[in-house]
Amino acid sequence: MTTGNDRTEAEPTREDSDYTLDRRAVAAILDAVEAGDQALLTELMEPLHQADIADLLEQIGPYDRERLIRLYAHEFDGEILSELDESIREEVISYLAPNVLAEAVRELESDDVVDLIEDLEEPQQEAILGVLEDADRVAVEQAMAYPEGSAGRLMQREVVMAPEHWNVGQAIDHLRASEDLPDQFYHVVLVDPRLHPIGNVTLGKLMGARREVPLRDLTEEMFRVIPATQDEEDVAYAFNQYHLISAPVVDDEGRLAGVITIDDAMAVLDEEHEEDILRLAGVGESSLSDSVAETAKRRLPWLGVNLLTAILASLVIAQFEATIAQFVALAVLMPIVASMGGNAGTQSLTVAVRALATRDLTGSNVWRVIRRELIVGLLNGLVFAVVMGVVGLVWFGSPVLGYVIAAAMVINLAMAGLAGTVIPIAMDKMGVDPALASGTFVTTVTDVVGFFAFLGLAAVVLL
Amino acid sequence: MTTGNDRTEAEPTREDSDYTLDRRAVAAILDAVEAGDQALLTELMEPLHQADIADLLEQIGPYDRERLIRLYAHEFDGEILSELDESIREEVISYLAPNVLAEAVRELESDDVVDLIEDLEEPQQEAILGVLEDADRVAVEQAMAYPEGSAGRLMQREVVMAPEHWNVGQAIDHLRASEDLPDQFYHVVLVDPRLHPIGNVTLGKLMGARREVPLRDLTEEMFRVIPATQDEEDVAYAFNQYHLISAPVVDDEGRLAGVITIDDAMAVLDEEHEEDILRLAGVGESSLSDSVAETAKRRLPWLGVNLLTAILASLVIAQFEATIAQFVALAVLMPIVASMGGNAGTQSLTVAVRALATRDLTGSNVWRVIRRELIVGLLNGLVFAVVMGVVGLVWFGSPVLGYVIAAAMVINLAMAGLAGTVIPIAMDKMGVDPALASGTFVTTVTDVVGFFAFLGLAAVVLL
Repeated sequence: MTTGNDRTEAEPTREDSDYTLDRRAVAAILDAVEAGDQALLTELMEPLHQADIADLLEQIGPYDRERLIRLYAHEFDGEILSELDESIREEVISYLAPNVLAEAVRELESDDVVDLIEDLEEPQQEAILGVLEDADRVAVEQAMAYPEGSAGRLMQREVVMAPEHWNVGQAIDHLRASEDLPDQFYHVVLVDPRLHPIGNVTLGKLMGARREVPLRDLTEEMFRVIPATQDEEDVAYAFNQYHLISAPVVDDEGRLAGVITIDDAMAVLDEEHEEDILRLAGVGESSLSDSVAETAKRRLPWLGVNLLTAILASLVIAQFEATIAQFVALAVLMPIVASMGGNAGTQSLTVAVRALATRDLTGSNVWRVIRRELIVGLLNGLVFAVVMGVVGLVWFGSPVLGYVIAAAMVINLAMAGLAGTVIPIAMDKMGVDPALASGTFVTTVTDVVGFFAFLGLAAVVLL
Repeated sequence: MTTGNDRTEAEPTREDSDYTLDRRAVAAILDAVEAGDQALLTELMEPLHQADIADLLEQIGPYDRERLIRLYAHEFDGEILSELDESIREEVISYLAPNVLAEAVRELESDDVVDLIEDLEEPQQEAILGVLEDADRVAVEQAMAYPEGSAGRLMQREVVMAPEHWNVGQAIDHLRASEDLPDQFYHVVLVDPRLHPIGNVTLGKLMGARREVPLRDLTEEMFRVIPATQDEEDVAYAFNQYHLISAPVVDDEGRLAGVITIDDAMAVLDEEHEEDILRLAGVGESSLSDSVAETAKRRLPWLGVNLLTAILASLVIAQFEATIAQFVALAVLMPIVASMGGNAGTQSLTVAVRALATRDLTGSNVWRVIRRELIVGLLNGLVFAVVMGVVGLVWFGSPVLGYVIAAAMVINLAMAGLAGTVIPIAMDKMGVDPALASGTFVTTVTDVVGFFAFLGLAAVVLL
């Protein structure tokens, strides 16, 4: 399409500085902390959103963090705690005087309090619950009764509802007479006499319709009810798939218990993604504000697993020591076969893990996908077999060595496509997160098969 | 915290079947297609959301896809096209008769049409633009004048606005008198006389306030204006960071041009995730519905780059052929050093790439993070040095071999931490997506350093 406008050619602008705390602002804040200048600090912090203040606290070191918080305590907002990474939340709370903490927490909505305390140690949990007003504490305790990571913990308990037989005029009069509407709400939930939600009416539709129109005639086409025990990952999926803005949450008896809004679902989607990408790399939960010791400890188990699998591959090589002693060229070339297999396997694996996460890989297409990955592995194996055959021939002047590495390449890349797809699918079937450990399994397969195919063929052909 | 409730112990339930097209439904639909039974097909498709129908079309093969679409054409909804993966959009459009396509497209909002046509070839783009009504076509063409991936393409042009001096009563009367309010809107945007947006008032606040309250007193604390040329990735970041629900978009002169809502931002966030995770694995853009040939072709370049780096590592090994010929144990153990370095490097790399994407890694903490990764690499290097020293000693009965592999392990894991952090940061500084190719660079470093340290030390110590 031609628009005759130069803008089409330009890249969209990236104005990072709009959103990141810039380096100079951080330096100025730390200078104010150094000088103990409370007035200046307050002035410099004033334009920052709570989410930015949380980022700031995560980015600076623990020594500066403590001094900054103590100097800023009089202004400390509960939202900062909600936004803070879990890894330093306990530390930050420990710097706050009890009265400051109490005031900060009392400002929060009950779902934010739940999010705040669910990962804290018991003494800190109880300290926070203790400062809440009775009604809020009960709400938080009720939410905490739902499993971790469930819709029940994610939902707000404040819901705006209306009986299904009302009309627009009744709903508007009721809303305008209400004293305590939630800060953010987008729908009126219609309920039947037993409090079962039966539809959503957007505020926009309510505004636009005549007073005598029954609410039932205005309900959204897309309406989904979420069980309170549902996994938050599935909640995020439903919001993203069906473009939900808010959805009612129901208890075991199907009665309205709360409402989840898209901003919470978006945060879950982002966390799930973080989990996937880090797990695929064998990092697990981690954060930039973790200490050196914590980071080293968290990465150790995965490296340990990798060591075992690497030793397994070495055991394969050890079977061919005699062959290698005769043809050292084999030692030079063998990492290439393993490395190509590992890369091709990671490609297939990542596509499969992502497709499982987005529910694109299902019972209906699983065989087609496995077959596709196997054939892709074979095709690319053939391409690199030709390339490596030539490299082997030219480098070491041995056509036979060229044939051997070519054959090993085809075998290993086909195996990589197969293992990279079958392993995550099998893990998913067994109820294990396929992002969690399938990387090690896949590279174990490609290392073992790669070394065995290359050295084994060489032993047969060259000796 | 103790709640005395058994639910705390239970895992949240996963009810995948709520959201995935189950295998039986797909089979029944394909049977109806096979039988050419239009009535049955329509009945089976009726409960499916457009997003589910799009998933269905992605999951079945091209032959079934064409037959299904031709049989279902009379019911075909434009939303299905919007939801469809780009890889098969052109194919699906080609199966639709011009009148069916015209009707499907006319139902869509202008921002969905933009999303639909921006990746199509010109003839298909023009066919779709041709069926739109004049006003819609102009709206689409105006949006297409903004760069691809910019806020201007993402925004809806229908905005509900009010002059800044109005009060609640005036706004409500105006809304109730409007004939054509957008389907979904959450805020009234306050504008000054030159159409510059100056605040958002939520519909909930409007509902809850007395008629004489000035709108200006009800504006949201969190208010962000998005330039139309801004990168959609930054838009998604801002929505997630600041919990925005909708935000006004402005043109070069700062005048209100449209509005972006959180559901669009959530879709962008999800796409960015997909891009990051696939790029880290060297897959690039890809989809399960790509053909075998396309998939093989897309993965080839990355495997080619990996081959070059693997050959580079082999050249390092080739320098030590004489040493290996004397001590074949070196050939057995050398992949372990390289593999551990590769894994540790991938861990550091993934943490850095993710932290750059979430703006957690900035000028303020870059040196602290690099130092931390280097020390973590050293510490874990020491742990595995001890382990491998013992393995080397026990397996090959050579204490010297143990020392050599231990020393190489420390060197390579420290280097992995350093390279895994510095390389993505440097790529980001140069304006290259750090997810895109840093994996190859990092494993090249760890392979080369690993082989060189291990074999080099062995050559010095053992000979």
